[in-house]
Amino acid sequence: MQIPPRGLAVRLSGHGDPSQVLRLENVAPVPPGRGQVQLRMRLAPINPADLNVIEGTYGRLPTLPATLGNEGLGEVVALGEGVSGFALGDLVRPRDGIGTWCQWCTADAARCLRLPAGLPDDQAAQLTINPGTAWAVLHEFPAGPPGSWVLLNAPTSAVGRSLMVLASRRGLRVLALVRREEEVGTVRSLGATEVVIEGREAAKAIRRQSGGTALLALNQVGGDSAAILAKSLAPLGTLVTIGALARQPLTLPNAAMIFSELRCCGFWVSRWYERVQPGVVEGMMDELGKLLRDGLLHLPVAATYPLERVQEAVAHAQRGGRGGKVLLAAHP
Amino acid sequence: MQIPPRGLAVRLSGHGDPSQVLRLENVAPVPPGRGQVQLRMRLAPINPADLNVIEGTYGRLPTLPATLGNEGLGEVVALGEGVSGFALGDLVRPRDGIGTWCQWCTADAARCLRLPAGLPDDQAAQLTINPGTAWAVLHEFPAGPPGSWVLLNAPTSAVGRSLMVLASRRGLRVLALVRREEEVGTVRSLGATEVVIEGREAAKAIRRQSGGTALLALNQVGGDSAAILAKSLAPLGTLVTIGALARQPLTLPNAAMIFSELRCCGFWVSRWYERVQPGVVEGMMDELGKLLRDGLLHLPVAATYPLERVQEAVAHAQRGGRGGKVLLAAHP
Repeated sequence: MQIPPRGLAVRLSGHGDPSQVLRLENVAPVPPGRGQVQLRMRLAPINPADLNVIEGTYGRLPTLPATLGNEGLGEVVALGEGVSGFALGDLVRPRDGIGTWCQWCTADAARCLRLPAGLPDDQAAQLTINPGTAWAVLHEFPAGPPGSWVLLNAPTSAVGRSLMVLASRRGLRVLALVRREEEVGTVRSLGATEVVIEGREAAKAIRRQSGGTALLALNQVGGDSAAILAKSLAPLGTLVTIGALARQPLTLPNAAMIFSELRCCGFWVSRWYERVQPGVVEGMMDELGKLLRDGLLHLPVAATYPLERVQEAVAHAQRGGRGGKVLLAAHP
Repeated sequence: MQIPPRGLAVRLSGHGDPSQVLRLENVAPVPPGRGQVQLRMRLAPINPADLNVIEGTYGRLPTLPATLGNEGLGEVVALGEGVSGFALGDLVRPRDGIGTWCQWCTADAARCLRLPAGLPDDQAAQLTINPGTAWAVLHEFPAGPPGSWVLLNAPTSAVGRSLMVLASRRGLRVLALVRREEEVGTVRSLGATEVVIEGREAAKAIRRQSGGTALLALNQVGGDSAAILAKSLAPLGTLVTIGALARQPLTLPNAAMIFSELRCCGFWVSRWYERVQPGVVEGMMDELGKLLRDGLLHLPVAATYPLERVQEAVAHAQRGGRGGKVLLAAHP
């Protein structure tokens, strides 16, 4: 493939207000060195992690200035010396925040995740972070035998949708905690067996519905919502925290923590990809690829913007109630 | 042994103010039934768990009226039919809150823990809950290889003292978080390698002292103190909560939870004794018995009261800064 002398990239110059710190630049694509692949980027989602990088609160921050974007879909268009396991035309996601909001990207092959073939680009571009988190949580934390209950909040998020589909496939029953009555129908249609609305009696309602037997709960919200999930778990149950949408600390009732011997675990999929045993990620890609290909799991898209309109795209991603991810298209 | 027709017992009639709900009664000792042992009680500590039972906030509450007391030292004085594994003269602690603040106690043999021989009564009477918790925490949660750091707050408590001695024996280094400068000397003399005083910079100081490598922290306090320990742990580190002396909920920073993938686990030794594999408790009794016998671990006693003065004893146990446990002597 003929690679042009310059390509667009969204660059971050500091942390703070996106309109001040994001800049669209024309940069020279870097030929792949030893062990590297060069990617023609197609699509990249704007995840909460990216917004946290912009504001400077993410777990790992790049040395600035840097190209933004943690997740994305790229096609291998050139191979450096000594690369094995990748071929031209492969679809991959470069890991470790090397920057995906750009037209051309050069990454260590060892840090690329090969994506399943045959998927719509807008699904493949979103596979590794959110469905990946849901898959990894079910892989890493015990939910109990088929028939057991799994609890979650924020069920309409991409992680939530993925977890509900994956849990159902494992024979688990899903109880979703929502903020508003209006969400109940949608959440049931996405696979929840039961739906409970947040409020003073929510933990009691969850315990009644689930018989107090749930061993696993997924928390993306924090604050009261997380405390409700914690109080709803069975003894030795696990509350896995992967996000903090409410931007309130995780406040756990001591009595439930101690007398039910709860386990409250943080989980970060970026670190998981670094430590997971060989073969596990391939199993994940197979299952998620099949679900997305067959339409059993669908990750909605709110809007797709070209890189030139990144400011609009970021503003859109910052708004709640979008109903899907905001994507950036590298080559419209 | 000749067992008298009546014996003293501290009975709980309701939950609330001890002066209203505790009563000293004369009750008839119960001859041991099939599978039971009869105990002549000697000494029983007043633990925070007992105060929580009185106020009605403990994890398991007896059907009232009930004899109080969760832990204690009794001598086997009669065996029911079909009891194996116990002999007259054995020293045991009856489990499951059947009541130890009394002169005579009848318990299922299966629910009795045999205590090591050759210990002073005031040490044996306190072995299973507090040193037992420290031992079990080090048994159940990974602290890393010798040389690793273990963090704890409330280091002068019976659990804290025990943990520091046990951790040192395992080649671990101990960093204790204290509230006041005046505690530093005492805590070092009890075995802490380093001591840090609570405050805004405490987490930073702990991370500096320990190189940010600590994998295990023991929290008996909650509130800010627990949050400091959490923020001081290495990725995938475990904060074990066994108490809530500050009576503030466990409030965990989301960023540390997620990006360090922390595990915050509640632990309750009463439930542990029910689920632990055979042989483990015997190993614990051997090690703790030897440490207490040799004086390498010492559990201080603030005062010993006869059962008749239980009101004074409970009031004493409710005060902070006692410097040791308050014990009740059944047969002064």
